[in-house]
Amino acid sequence: MPTERVRVRRLPKRASYERAVLDAILDAGMLCHVGFVPDATPVVIPTLYWRDGDVVYFHGSSASRMLKAVTAHDVCLTVTLLDAMVLTRSAFHHSANYRSAMLFGKPFLVDDDRERLAQMQLFVDSLYPGRWSTLRPVSDVELKATRILGLTIGEFSVKRREGGPEDDPADYAWPVWGGIIPICERAGEPEPDSHQPGCAMPSPRLNRLS
Amino acid sequence: MPTERVRVRRLPKRASYERAVLDAILDAGMLCHVGFVPDATPVVIPTLYWRDGDVVYFHGSSASRMLKAVTAHDVCLTVTLLDAMVLTRSAFHHSANYRSAMLFGKPFLVDDDRERLAQMQLFVDSLYPGRWSTLRPVSDVELKATRILGLTIGEFSVKRREGGPEDDPADYAWPVWGGIIPICERAGEPEPDSHQPGCAMPSPRLNRLS
Repeated sequence: MPTERVRVRRLPKRASYERAVLDAILDAGMLCHVGFVPDATPVVIPTLYWRDGDVVYFHGSSASRMLKAVTAHDVCLTVTLLDAMVLTRSAFHHSANYRSAMLFGKPFLVDDDRERLAQMQLFVDSLYPGRWSTLRPVSDVELKATRILGLTIGEFSVKRREGGPEDDPADYAWPVWGGIIPICERAGEPEPDSHQPGCAMPSPRLNRLS
Repeated sequence: MPTERVRVRRLPKRASYERAVLDAILDAGMLCHVGFVPDATPVVIPTLYWRDGDVVYFHGSSASRMLKAVTAHDVCLTVTLLDAMVLTRSAFHHSANYRSAMLFGKPFLVDDDRERLAQMQLFVDSLYPGRWSTLRPVSDVELKATRILGLTIGEFSVKRREGGPEDDPADYAWPVWGGIIPICERAGEPEPDSHQPGCAMPSPRLNRLS
């Protein structure tokens, strides 16, 4: 049973509270938006994330005010994948296909050095398989300067729409195009800088983008 | 001068408070994340938006709890465009190129029917140029069922990164590939449904995606 906080009220047929559905969305995305309330006003900050089992991680500088503030109270971490625009015969029924996950909880600080290093590796290798072992090793100063937060997956909900247009039945005869326009996020051609031009990329693509 | 709420502390060289920079980001995006605090916990909801001059609009059902809650207090509306992944020779300096805009304020309800209808038209035509006039006209019931909120552009900040990798000088000799991998969001081939197969699309592309 979903908690009151995560129960989807609007269009509940689009909702899911299944862990496998959540994980598929989390593992397909790279960017999340974290909402927190440092003072009276909510602040929504975009950041990259990764998942390791039951925990979603994000990171940043030890000097970041966001990363200091978010361990004090519950945050909302939202991941949204926009899949297609949906065009109907009436303005009213136009829509979008999307997959969205919303997680609530109080993030914890990863303070163990070895665990922080392991998570940095997982983050790099999840984006660029095999890259970690090719890099200049992390220094102690860099490790200290990196703050990593984990949000244990507990309260969450998923909402998504898929499929084609849904018009009012009488409108299907209206003489205008209806259908969907897919939206694709893709990795483009890698652009090397001027150093080490002879080095091959460890992976020809981003792991999470086709 | 930016207010305290929007002043960027971390990496202030990436910040901008210029209206033209903001508008360019808003007009390049379609999806925003709105953070509000209905109770004690922040909630971050994804929604499509459009801009008309000094106002950013978003919409939804009159039954939506989000749209009811957001006129009571300030919200944070964030738009993020992820442009490229940045690969350096050390894990520490890996980064991403992005453009992000954050706006604060208390949204207002568009309660005038004619203005609401005009904004629905602007929303449709901003996504699909010329489509509005081809659609089955909006009914009074549909107009009543559509809630539109406006956020007047006032307090905002922009943060972005562009360009290539920035390694520690000694690391440029480390024998691993460095550069950027662009990320492109594109409209795919339109997929018509089974009705009105003879109708041509009014526009071959989404206005805001190349």
